[in-house]
Amino acid sequence: MIPNPLAERYATEPIKEIWSPQGRILLERQYWIAVMRAQQLVGIPIPDEALKAYERVVGQVDLPSIAQRERVTRHDVKARIEEFCDLAGHQHIHKGLTSRDLTENVEQLQVYRSLQQVRLKTIAVLDRMEKKARETKDLLLTGRTHNVAAQPITLGKRLAMFGEELERALQVLDRLIETYPARGLKGAVGTQLDIATLLEGDNLKVDILEKQILEHLGIPQSWDNVGQVYPRSLDFETLSALYQIGASPSSFAKTLRIMAGHELGSEGFAPGQVGSSAMPHKMNSRSCERINGFHVILRGYLTMVEGLAGDQWNEGDVSCSVVRRVALPDSFFAIDGLLETTLVVLEQMEWFPAVIGRENQHYLPFLCTTTFLMEALKGGMGREEAHKVIKKHAIETVQDLRQGVIQENDLIQRLCKDPQLSVLEPQALQKILEDATALVGRATQQIEPFRQKVDSWRERFPKASTYKPQAIL
Amino acid sequence: MIPNPLAERYATEPIKEIWSPQGRILLERQYWIAVMRAQQLVGIPIPDEALKAYERVVGQVDLPSIAQRERVTRHDVKARIEEFCDLAGHQHIHKGLTSRDLTENVEQLQVYRSLQQVRLKTIAVLDRMEKKARETKDLLLTGRTHNVAAQPITLGKRLAMFGEELERALQVLDRLIETYPARGLKGAVGTQLDIATLLEGDNLKVDILEKQILEHLGIPQSWDNVGQVYPRSLDFETLSALYQIGASPSSFAKTLRIMAGHELGSEGFAPGQVGSSAMPHKMNSRSCERINGFHVILRGYLTMVEGLAGDQWNEGDVSCSVVRRVALPDSFFAIDGLLETTLVVLEQMEWFPAVIGRENQHYLPFLCTTTFLMEALKGGMGREEAHKVIKKHAIETVQDLRQGVIQENDLIQRLCKDPQLSVLEPQALQKILEDATALVGRATQQIEPFRQKVDSWRERFPKASTYKPQAIL
Amino acid sequence: MIPNPLAERYATEPIKEIWSPQGRILLERQYWIAVMRAQQLVGIPIPDEALKAYERVVGQVDLPSIAQRERVTRHDVKARIEEFCDLAGHQHIHKGLTSRDLTENVEQLQVYRSLQQVRLKTIAVLDRMEKKARETKDLLLTGRTHNVAAQPITLGKRLAMFGEELERALQVLDRLIETYPARGLKGAVGTQLDIATLLEGDNLKVDILEKQILEHLGIPQSWDNVGQVYPRSLDFETLSALYQIGASPSSFAKTLRIMAGHELGSEGFAPGQVGSSAMPHKMNSRSCERINGFHVILRGYLTMVEGLAGDQWNEGDVSCSVVRRVALPDSFFAIDGLLETTLVVLEQMEWFPAVIGRENQHYLPFLCTTTFLMEALKGGMGREEAHKVIKKHAIETVQDLRQGVIQENDLIQRLCKDPQLSVLEPQALQKILEDATALVGRATQQIEPFRQKVDSWRERFPKASTYKPQAIL
Amino acid sequence: MIPNPLAERYATEPIKEIWSPQGRILLERQYWIAVMRAQQLVGIPIPDEALKAYERVVGQVDLPSIAQRERVTRHDVKARIEEFCDLAGHQHIHKGLTSRDLTENVEQLQVYRSLQQVRLKTIAVLDRMEKKARETKDLLLTGRTHNVAAQPITLGKRLAMFGEELERALQVLDRLIETYPARGLKGAVGTQLDIATLLEGDNLKVDILEKQILEHLGIPQSWDNVGQVYPRSLDFETLSALYQIGASPSSFAKTLRIMAGHELGSEGFAPGQVGSSAMPHKMNSRSCERINGFHVILRGYLTMVEGLAGDQWNEGDVSCSVVRRVALPDSFFAIDGLLETTLVVLEQMEWFPAVIGRENQHYLPFLCTTTFLMEALKGGMGREEAHKVIKKHAIETVQDLRQGVIQENDLIQRLCKDPQLSVLEPQALQKILEDATALVGRATQQIEPFRQKVDSWRERFPKASTYKPQAIL
Repeated sequence: MIPNPLAERYATEPIKEIWSPQGRILLERQYWIAVMRAQQLVGIPIPDEALKAYERVVGQVDLPSIAQRERVTRHDVKARIEEFCDLAGHQHIHKGLTSRDLTENVEQLQVYRSLQQVRLKTIAVLDRMEKKARETKDLLLTGRTHNVAAQPITLGKRLAMFGEELERALQVLDRLIETYPARGLKGAVGTQLDIATLLEGDNLKVDILEKQILEHLGIPQSWDNVGQVYPRSLDFETLSALYQIGASPSSFAKTLRIMAGHELGSEGFAPGQVGSSAMPHKMNSRSCERINGFHVILRGYLTMVEGLAGDQWNEGDVSCSVVRRVALPDSFFAIDGLLETTLVVLEQMEWFPAVIGRENQHYLPFLCTTTFLMEALKGGMGREEAHKVIKKHAIETVQDLRQGVIQENDLIQRLCKDPQLSVLEPQALQKILEDATALVGRATQQIEPFRQKVDSWRERFPKASTYKPQAIL
Repeated sequence: MIPNPLAERYATEPIKEIWSPQGRILLERQYWIAVMRAQQLVGIPIPDEALKAYERVVGQVDLPSIAQRERVTRHDVKARIEEFCDLAGHQHIHKGLTSRDLTENVEQLQVYRSLQQVRLKTIAVLDRMEKKARETKDLLLTGRTHNVAAQPITLGKRLAMFGEELERALQVLDRLIETYPARGLKGAVGTQLDIATLLEGDNLKVDILEKQILEHLGIPQSWDNVGQVYPRSLDFETLSALYQIGASPSSFAKTLRIMAGHELGSEGFAPGQVGSSAMPHKMNSRSCERINGFHVILRGYLTMVEGLAGDQWNEGDVSCSVVRRVALPDSFFAIDGLLETTLVVLEQMEWFPAVIGRENQHYLPFLCTTTFLMEALKGGMGREEAHKVIKKHAIETVQDLRQGVIQENDLIQRLCKDPQLSVLEPQALQKILEDATALVGRATQQIEPFRQKVDSWRERFPKASTYKPQAIL
Repeated sequence: MIPNPLAERYATEPIKEIWSPQGRILLERQYWIAVMRAQQLVGIPIPDEALKAYERVVGQVDLPSIAQRERVTRHDVKARIEEFCDLAGHQHIHKGLTSRDLTENVEQLQVYRSLQQVRLKTIAVLDRMEKKARETKDLLLTGRTHNVAAQPITLGKRLAMFGEELERALQVLDRLIETYPARGLKGAVGTQLDIATLLEGDNLKVDILEKQILEHLGIPQSWDNVGQVYPRSLDFETLSALYQIGASPSSFAKTLRIMAGHELGSEGFAPGQVGSSAMPHKMNSRSCERINGFHVILRGYLTMVEGLAGDQWNEGDVSCSVVRRVALPDSFFAIDGLLETTLVVLEQMEWFPAVIGRENQHYLPFLCTTTFLMEALKGGMGREEAHKVIKKHAIETVQDLRQGVIQENDLIQRLCKDPQLSVLEPQALQKILEDATALVGRATQQIEPFRQKVDSWRERFPKASTYKPQAIL
Repeated sequence: MIPNPLAERYATEPIKEIWSPQGRILLERQYWIAVMRAQQLVGIPIPDEALKAYERVVGQVDLPSIAQRERVTRHDVKARIEEFCDLAGHQHIHKGLTSRDLTENVEQLQVYRSLQQVRLKTIAVLDRMEKKARETKDLLLTGRTHNVAAQPITLGKRLAMFGEELERALQVLDRLIETYPARGLKGAVGTQLDIATLLEGDNLKVDILEKQILEHLGIPQSWDNVGQVYPRSLDFETLSALYQIGASPSSFAKTLRIMAGHELGSEGFAPGQVGSSAMPHKMNSRSCERINGFHVILRGYLTMVEGLAGDQWNEGDVSCSVVRRVALPDSFFAIDGLLETTLVVLEQMEWFPAVIGRENQHYLPFLCTTTFLMEALKGGMGREEAHKVIKKHAIETVQDLRQGVIQENDLIQRLCKDPQLSVLEPQALQKILEDATALVGRATQQIEPFRQKVDSWRERFPKASTYKPQAIL
């Protein structure tokens, strides 16, 4: 058999269980039983003993037997009905239902439960990001824009920046979960014709029945007007939320790959790990690369459901069937792998203050040029004039460093020597360099509101803080 | 000059104004003035007369002059600063700001105002869909799944189905607007270093300043931790919402194209309109086709911002710049065109009860087979046995119709003649056919909760109900 | 285990074999043996008995044992080296190779062989399309543009139209196969350092070695300058070709779904098949819908490799690894399923001349309006004047038909009654209607050059004509 | 008016001319004249003086007048017919043509000419890449995989690697151009009905007429079987080729951005250029970032035409119209901007041997570990044993460097001191370091076949070598 690599190599058990062939059969059978219970309630005659018989065999999942039946009936749902009924020795399931009354709701249940898993794990990532941010909130780092040294920041601030992006995505995901609508029992074209007929047109009973089903599913609400299927733009909304969740870890991973190239930090390297069978010194950012890979994969599945949204003909057809069979489970496997890998990276990541310090040292005079500029202004120079002279010396210093003319950044000496900048006091400039930690502005304080946001998630989902990722390949 | 076809051919004035080069300059200048007012408030010395001077010239937008300056400075923001200052005869704007403190916020304002336009117009579409649904809630129609006759519905129910999909998307859009975060005044790497320096490190003043700016923008909140730029996953969230808004009109348009192929309905045909210069009889669903085209276009712009989300290096760079310059305005032009066209189609659409009735007549015996089945069960037949016999006759009838053996659907006669189905009373079957309107199940009642949802939007945004689309090309 | 649904439900054995875990191990081992043979040839001491020992155990693939080794080494290639060596009792494989010298070439071999399968199957589809086109080349059909009756065509012409689109895509695919470049033995950063060292810098021997490997792979050429990996734009080129192959079947399938909605044709309905467990009369275009679904799936995988192309950092990293692990096999499973399903549809498709004839009859006077126009011109009327009058009557006739005012298309009578059109002879118009087959223009002849193109493919790949699809789910 | 930013800011005149509203009118008029000439040839009476009259006014393009006419006719082609005829004082154009006989061919001509521009410019990029590769073929550089030091390469080899990827894409583009098929004169549903009627069914004349038109277009061939439109998978093939062209420059640009982060090289910095209005020292890789942005933009337009391929209903509709109106011109503007920017970067790029040398020095002992390993083997040690010991010292050295324990890479001393590695001679190891240029393997020679490939393009398109990009914003 050809395995699903996303599931087999990267996803965790809880997600795999939801989407496994066995898990699916179980969800369907529990759903049928819930429907029978609800039908009993509104007066459809379902004997208690039948219910008990079905419950007794609910876990006896024999996939080859079902497959054998499908080869005869050429109808997958029919095959599963027969199998369950034969096991139970009764024929009371699926009354007044069409296939979609079963499959749409069960698939939505798979989606819904998966989304809850993703939410929990996202909060775990957020928890770890926030803790690392707090731990490193005072570690001065050369901030980079355009991948070039810009102004000083702290490592903690950088992490909080990625964290806050993730927190926004989490809000979107959370709202999706809290308002997720199931299709419900709507019949072949959405009019509830058959179930209404079954209940002799008693609308109240139809509503009670549907409410019971929603309660079983644990899904907050249901659609009122659908066709054969629920609108596929809901699948788009779902995968769009997953893609947004993946964005922050992806940016974080790329940044860590770049930092590793400078040896400022690394994603960690397990004892005994081998980077390359040929080159003994190699310690690769393989997990970060994988996070980026997962995000690209999610984009592919998002593309698939983009192709379904807005493509409903009349009351619906099944050109979406094979697409959803692939895109729904596989995108949850991918986001699960992405979040697990991010958790591992966050737990094992390292940073190297010695190298970080050397980099700061190298760039510091550049990182302070705006402050030098202010000193010049205070001394009475015109802004544009000062900017021009400082720029001249800064560019020349950069070039001399690059050409190897000098080894150390001597911008300050150059500034002090220039008679045009006589207003600048060498000691004052030197003092600015020495107080470099003051140059991070409000970086340290900005982390606080981020902590508060994460706290409120931790309170709502206390399990997230203690969630540990599984070992990754 | 090469025009932007989406703007020139399809978008309306309010959206074009937001994104026009002039409009952009205006937004920037108003923003600079708001910043100066706020700076005055926290004690930065900005003379009143300077403020007045800037306000006086705010509308004097001379694009060629600005372009001329850019060719000298090679820096677009610098060119615009100089132009505005020269016009005003003062140099008080942009104090303590970096370019991104201006451009990010102004672009977000453009996005924010455009989103509000889209919301209003979406509610107008919803309003029109709901009214048409009510108007046609009793018009019996052959429901189709897999593009093949299935069970009866009503035209109103079909419209409510597309309407409810749109209402879900509107919720997503609305929540985005209500929680949209601006970047705010955060400085070159997000630490607010320069503005804090300007305010001598007085954090309270920094916060007041930022709050004032948000108030000017009218945007509900701002990010705490960002880099040079706000996270591009917010742009993804934005365009994702637009794509979701477009899904329901796209499905509606495809369905109307299919209905037009059967002459059940049409998107309307203006007096004097020409369908084809060659073929005089042609009345094409060109507007519906265009709606589908717009949705494909939106997918392309969504792809672009998908490529930006998760691709931030360190505190950010500008590989996103040219992409956003295209994807942001053009996706708003496209969704505007899509919604305008949908409004026109909804206002001009026609349906042809005579043709619809003929189709119902042709398929009715098929549409009732589940009800026949129930009659057989009531008469004491086994379900599977009855299903098998009815299916045999139904398939044979279909084939005889297709082969031209018969012209009229005579399924009922065949059923009545079959001794295996002797439990079926010809009169009973005939009565089912005659009561066909009963076969739409709860279709008519389902429209009611849809109406209520639309009502609450109409209450919040009363202008939507009276909004009229502009004439389309 | 979570199965891969694309492989398990839709793909055929030959493709599954190429991409199965076992198949992959076999390809790798055969590759290692080929490398040893080539190394022997250029003088690297590999004992014959070692070679024989490896060959003896090549088929003993024990996946759990390899997995067990990987848990120890944490390096998948290393685990497979050890397994193979232990089985053979020798240690002569992988000399001078890095992992990518193995994996890139083996994955390219999988791609290359899959492409050959796709080519063969595409030609089979083309063969079937051409035969059906010839079979139906005289069957008059109402041609539709904008989904509305336009001018007459033939069914054969419609099929040839889709066929010719496919033939173009096949040319692209064929050229890709004929010029496909393998990465070859290039070492860790592409410089062939290690293999050159092993051969004491003898460049000639390095070249011979590489040529031998290419011969083993059967791949026509190799890259000269690569890094750790071959450029991922080649993967994009590959999946782009697959997507293009899928376009024509997708358009064909959509058209057949629309035709089925009019009961002009169908994708066939197997004896015993059940369309719906509820509605006995249903015969759905499920296979055509599936073809459209596969095309959307292919778009998703294409998106994934779009995300890899243009994203190489330096000599390459492995952020592409997990993406290719998913996108490469799964896109081949999807195109395989798409082509198999298309073959089945082409073999089982039906068309219903009686219904087709009724439609032609209904629209014929409209389909002839351009010809009526010419008659009027010949009679001396002005073109624009004639066009205007004919259009008036045509539109009125359409509307009367739609409103049920008339049941039969009486355009001709209306034209003849209009004194403005006195130049039109009733008999002449009637004759045009009767000669309707003349109104297909050159449709019948156009099929001939299409046949010739298909013939030349059939000659090159004679197996394609006799290829039979497997039974589909 | 809202301008098209891709055209206005980045594209060059030749491309803009092709796609400008005026340029389009010109192409259409020239096409109509060519059709009249061809019609004359096959005997359709077109007076010479009419032809001359049309030729005389061909350049009098008055867009507002045409727009005014369109507001009356509501048919764009009709408006343009009338304008041209009124200018010429004759009514002989468009005989026997439908709108698509004009618009499809003219749009294909725009595509075809744009493709030729792209080909020329791609060869210019290739030319520059090859020259830079030759110039730097001996410059030793630390090769990186996973963004971490791996083995030595040369800068020239790195450039040749990106160059060869581009050359492959160029082959794809070239083949597309050489086999590009026009739709030709095919009539309303592709049957050539009207033109055949016009020529009294003389097929030979129809063929001559079509051949003449192709000759005018300069397009090598035409389709035989099409509907109202040519298959949109051809547009997909076209934009797919553009995306592939963009991949190599995109990888090159990302790599240069990373190199700039290490100050190994830069995209150049013009005299007088300002990096940041705030930070005087900044020299950003803005052009490289823009190249990456263009590639993302191309992906968006590719997505749009992906949505058109495989979505043809019957003989075609115009749901593709608005999409192509955007995606076709804009993707050519984007690729034009991408290639222009790449040319500028290639001309202005810098590299800093001093910094490069320092990096080599820092990593050299690591880059040689495979060679040390071989020395150990020659000395009689077991491979795995030697690998293990060397790895231990390498990792420890890395960590001591990162922790700041040591400042210089002292791996060699550590190896020499280890009694387990007594077979290693200190002088031998030192000699390996000193001969580091030998460690680039065959890097230098590999550039030669790349040069040959580029030479053959230069021969075919000699103008490419002298093409100079325009100044960029």
